Amino acid sequence: MRSGVAVSNLPDRDPPGLPLPLTGRTSLFAILGDPIDQVGSPTLINTAFRRRGWPAVLVPLHVKAPDLAVALKGLRSMANLRGVMLTAPHKTRGLGFVDSIGPEARLVRSINAIHCGKDGRWHGENFDGLGCLQGLRTAGHEVEQKRVLVIGTGGAGRAVAAAVARAKPAELCLYDVDQERAGAVRQDLSAAFPDVSVTVGPPDPETFEIMINCTPVGMAGSCGSPVDPSRLAPGTLVVDLVIEPELTYLLQAAAARGCIVQPGLFTLAGQVDALCAFFDGGDNV
Amino acid sequence: MRSGVAVSNLPDRDPPGLPLPLTGRTSLFAILGDPIDQVGSPTLINTAFRRRGWPAVLVPLHVKAPDLAVALKGLRSMANLRGVMLTAPHKTRGLGFVDSIGPEARLVRSINAIHCGKDGRWHGENFDGLGCLQGLRTAGHEVEQKRVLVIGTGGAGRAVAAAVARAKPAELCLYDVDQERAGAVRQDLSAAFPDVSVTVGPPDPETFEIMINCTPVGMAGSCGSPVDPSRLAPGTLVVDLVIEPELTYLLQAAAARGCIVQPGLFTLAGQVDALCAFFDGGDNV
Repeated sequence: MRSGVAVSNLPDRDPPGLPLPLTGRTSLFAILGDPIDQVGSPTLINTAFRRRGWPAVLVPLHVKAPDLAVALKGLRSMANLRGVMLTAPHKTRGLGFVDSIGPEARLVRSINAIHCGKDGRWHGENFDGLGCLQGLRTAGHEVEQKRVLVIGTGGAGRAVAAAVARAKPAELCLYDVDQERAGAVRQDLSAAFPDVSVTVGPPDPETFEIMINCTPVGMAGSCGSPVDPSRLAPGTLVVDLVIEPELTYLLQAAAARGCIVQPGLFTLAGQVDALCAFFDGGDNV
Repeated sequence: MRSGVAVSNLPDRDPPGLPLPLTGRTSLFAILGDPIDQVGSPTLINTAFRRRGWPAVLVPLHVKAPDLAVALKGLRSMANLRGVMLTAPHKTRGLGFVDSIGPEARLVRSINAIHCGKDGRWHGENFDGLGCLQGLRTAGHEVEQKRVLVIGTGGAGRAVAAAVARAKPAELCLYDVDQERAGAVRQDLSAAFPDVSVTVGPPDPETFEIMINCTPVGMAGSCGSPVDPSRLAPGTLVVDLVIEPELTYLLQAAAARGCIVQPGLFTLAGQVDALCAFFDGGDNV
């Protein structure tokens, strides 16, 4: 499978021997999600912190959807907290808990990162789209002039779709089991990028050069594929945002059919530098 | 100074090269305090976790006294949190936020550790007294049949005084700027240990063989000494619970006068094994 090569080329893959000394002066970062076991951020982000020499650590926090408000309120009371990352199911609701948001978050209506200023102000932004495209670039792929199918228009899907639209694809097609949600994202993106053809269509990858799964389907514990794998044409670039398993059922089936596959860790690795710059912004770390 | 030897003999002093890999599956422990910069737990406890091979990390959380309730409520919502440590000023108020407490916590009316069960129940206990006496034993000292002066009867002071009383000293004298508080602790300990002479007296170390500072006086940022150093007799064992600086003004003055000195890290190191057993109790880590 080609994915073996791709994965071993991942930038910043964890060098497990690096020490992570923790003291009372260590700045805190946290990633909130449910489930949390599968998140790749602790490994990749802590490696990035260590390489930068930052006295900082990112820890996983298992927080269920109904607990988001109380968890974030608690985190607000921790004066050495410098940043928060949000993963499913918190990316959209997270918008309501910050003092300001960046332009990408405004466009895609979700955040995956919060800069916790020393002045107490929380600023949210979304780096998933940037990360996905940077991950593609790392592996030598561009979306410009390509026909792209994005499956799922939740927090991550909207972010990826916006980044794809900005990169001038030949066509951007959105699919979501919630057709209304897909339609709303289409409207937003058509307004923001009037020169790009944004459509809503069925989850049929056959006529697309790039297909990106932004749903949790395939995540450890669930199974199945977000599209019918028999509709995947050889040579299609199949991208999955799911982190664990590294090779989802979708990616395994795609690789077996001669597709090029990209695991979810690329989208995370592709945003690490931008995340660190964001967390470092102004007064932090 | 003798303290140099003592400090280098500290058990479990951080070997900075040990890796601490963090993943989404890492269990979380936190220590809450204000200030937080000086706490030694992240270094010592994480070293202990690593030596035990536990997939766990302890992080410092800077939480001010008025924020304790909201911080703990937030932590309750984090399903992978397995334990909490409390340091000043939270040890006494922390009692009100757990579902049950152990016998030592009941006696000394404060907690420094919470076991967060997977069933959602929080159980508090206090290991400061055990840690202080274990720290003394590590350096070859016993309090049995000794005249002991404990300065400060807040959360840590009460815990240390109770452990001293249990160890059958010739005399246990308590001092606190808040005389009423010292008197209440004296009553509690006299009731619990009727065979021990527990008194309340002035902060005059001259006639005592062991003096233990359980106040924050001398902590980095503050200065001064909780007792008049010129009243320290050569040969007195002077113990400080302050972690940072390692050699407080009190310990420096005491060493200069020919006293034996013990820095605060001993009290912490002396409770690490008990803390790990407590955190590991039943379902955890």
